[in-house]
Amino acid sequence: MFHGFAASSPEADWEAFEFDPGPLGYDEVEVEVEYCGICHSDLSMKKNEWGMTSYPFVGGHEVAGRIVALGEGVEGLEVGQRVGVGWTSASCLHCDQCLSGYQNRCLQAQGTIVGRHGGFADRVRAQAAWTIPIPEGLDSVDCGPLFCGGLTVFDPFVENNILPTARVAVVGIGGLGHMALKFARAWGCEVTALSTSPDKEEEARQMGAHHFLNSRDSEALAAAAGSFDMVLVTVNAPLDWDAYINTLRPGGKLHLVGAAEKITATVFPLILGQRSIGGSPTGGIVRAKEMIDFCARHTIKPLIETFPMSELNAAMEHLEAGKARYRIVLTPG
Amino acid sequence: MFHGFAASSPEADWEAFEFDPGPLGYDEVEVEVEYCGICHSDLSMKKNEWGMTSYPFVGGHEVAGRIVALGEGVEGLEVGQRVGVGWTSASCLHCDQCLSGYQNRCLQAQGTIVGRHGGFADRVRAQAAWTIPIPEGLDSVDCGPLFCGGLTVFDPFVENNILPTARVAVVGIGGLGHMALKFARAWGCEVTALSTSPDKEEEARQMGAHHFLNSRDSEALAAAAGSFDMVLVTVNAPLDWDAYINTLRPGGKLHLVGAAEKITATVFPLILGQRSIGGSPTGGIVRAKEMIDFCARHTIKPLIETFPMSELNAAMEHLEAGKARYRIVLTPG
Repeated sequence: MFHGFAASSPEADWEAFEFDPGPLGYDEVEVEVEYCGICHSDLSMKKNEWGMTSYPFVGGHEVAGRIVALGEGVEGLEVGQRVGVGWTSASCLHCDQCLSGYQNRCLQAQGTIVGRHGGFADRVRAQAAWTIPIPEGLDSVDCGPLFCGGLTVFDPFVENNILPTARVAVVGIGGLGHMALKFARAWGCEVTALSTSPDKEEEARQMGAHHFLNSRDSEALAAAAGSFDMVLVTVNAPLDWDAYINTLRPGGKLHLVGAAEKITATVFPLILGQRSIGGSPTGGIVRAKEMIDFCARHTIKPLIETFPMSELNAAMEHLEAGKARYRIVLTPG
Repeated sequence: MFHGFAASSPEADWEAFEFDPGPLGYDEVEVEVEYCGICHSDLSMKKNEWGMTSYPFVGGHEVAGRIVALGEGVEGLEVGQRVGVGWTSASCLHCDQCLSGYQNRCLQAQGTIVGRHGGFADRVRAQAAWTIPIPEGLDSVDCGPLFCGGLTVFDPFVENNILPTARVAVVGIGGLGHMALKFARAWGCEVTALSTSPDKEEEARQMGAHHFLNSRDSEALAAAAGSFDMVLVTVNAPLDWDAYINTLRPGGKLHLVGAAEKITATVFPLILGQRSIGGSPTGGIVRAKEMIDFCARHTIKPLIETFPMSELNAAMEHLEAGKARYRIVLTPG
């Protein structure tokens, strides 16, 4: 039996929950959860905001732990090895997307907490291919958030061919944004943090920002016209999109990883400035490996607050209140 | 004196107009206009829809002709040489955009018909760098439309790194779209034409489309979900943007060269499918040379109707009535 914490409905508290995961799949790995980050989408899923939650719902998709069992067909991984599991825990591995390295875009991909039980538990399972080894030099307690939030903000640098000569702006200094600042700095870019909270400036600079811009200051935003090669939007609130697009250099990209429902933009500045609006969903398997290796090489880790897993309800309230600085990680007990 | 046709106000007819162009600039070329295409933006400019028209207004920015005089500082061009002039006739050549090959994105760029007198005349002037030689194998009468409309729909193939393995859709079969179909076919792609006019299907196939899709047929559009690497929008009407974005493959690009005023899109399909919305303005100088050389190598030319320049008013009415099939070219006289 696995022992975890589940919500029985969108409104329910998280309660101790025991379940039988059934036989370990041929290509699956069983992981002892040592640490599990909390992502905002754990909250969205608990509340069934996306209409795809099944109850009892065991959240948690930022797992760092150790392999305790290998399915019959698994090669290249070992019991005892440190690994991470993020948003996706399986994909078909034979569609065109999987075969092109974009397993995150597989239409059959299985979310770790979508129709499965996630990492708010003592153990979790994932397809071997999606079980990412943690390199030496990183502490496991820091790694969980990298496998979902970290990968999500790392991927746009690769997918948009961002070079170290680029000027990158990160919108929102939170769970995602603060890791994006660290990646952007380590990437060698000129980094600007945009936030509605001027009190975060000092911290943003410590995370790697060369510049800080109060995004409620429309004059400051207007003065940044034509500045950025990529504006990475990590918030899910509707923004004055034209004002942000105006901060892009010619050829620049507004890249969304936080999902406002709709985006509306004036077309002329897109055409005349050859700018674009895009987005991306986490990242593929090799991208996850590159990301975690990059973190080890550049000593990148999230700023975390820890809660024992037994205090999951308190941790979730802390997250929902917007108080997390900047990512919550559940520890054993 | 130059002899052309000008409108004295947004509502006025085009009338014979004579003007002194002043001394030829150091880096300028004077071109005898042999043919001049009519672009929809000649109409928009005449009506001052973009608030940047000065009157008397001499339109015309799809010129094919011969050099008749060279400014003192001009090298590499010769009197008598066949050349073309498109939307842009000068740029600063020393800003970062110009120095990066994106002279079309120069903030100091001068439109051939913006604050200057264009090609609805016997002669026109342009900066030497923006005067594009016409290669052997192309008839001048076909070339004018290539230098504005042609370049505009050619550039997205290069800028989006479209390979011949791509599936490309062209929205709108008109002045721009019909050239886009020809480029897409010559590029080696699988080509789909999307049009609200089912009666254009046969012609679209002759222009290079492998497939034809009636864009008013929402079921057919829905059935094309996940099909295209690039959807090139050549119309300037507002569309059901989500329906078109839904036709993009993962990683696909909706590329706008026709300018609706605003675009609104649902964000989730952008993020999950890693799709993007972008646009581009004509193309740079080297791109224009590549385009015209590509046309010569692949025997690409627009479908044109000719009117003597003296019948400019009738030609403009024909254009405004949506009757042009597909590009109007003014001939001498």
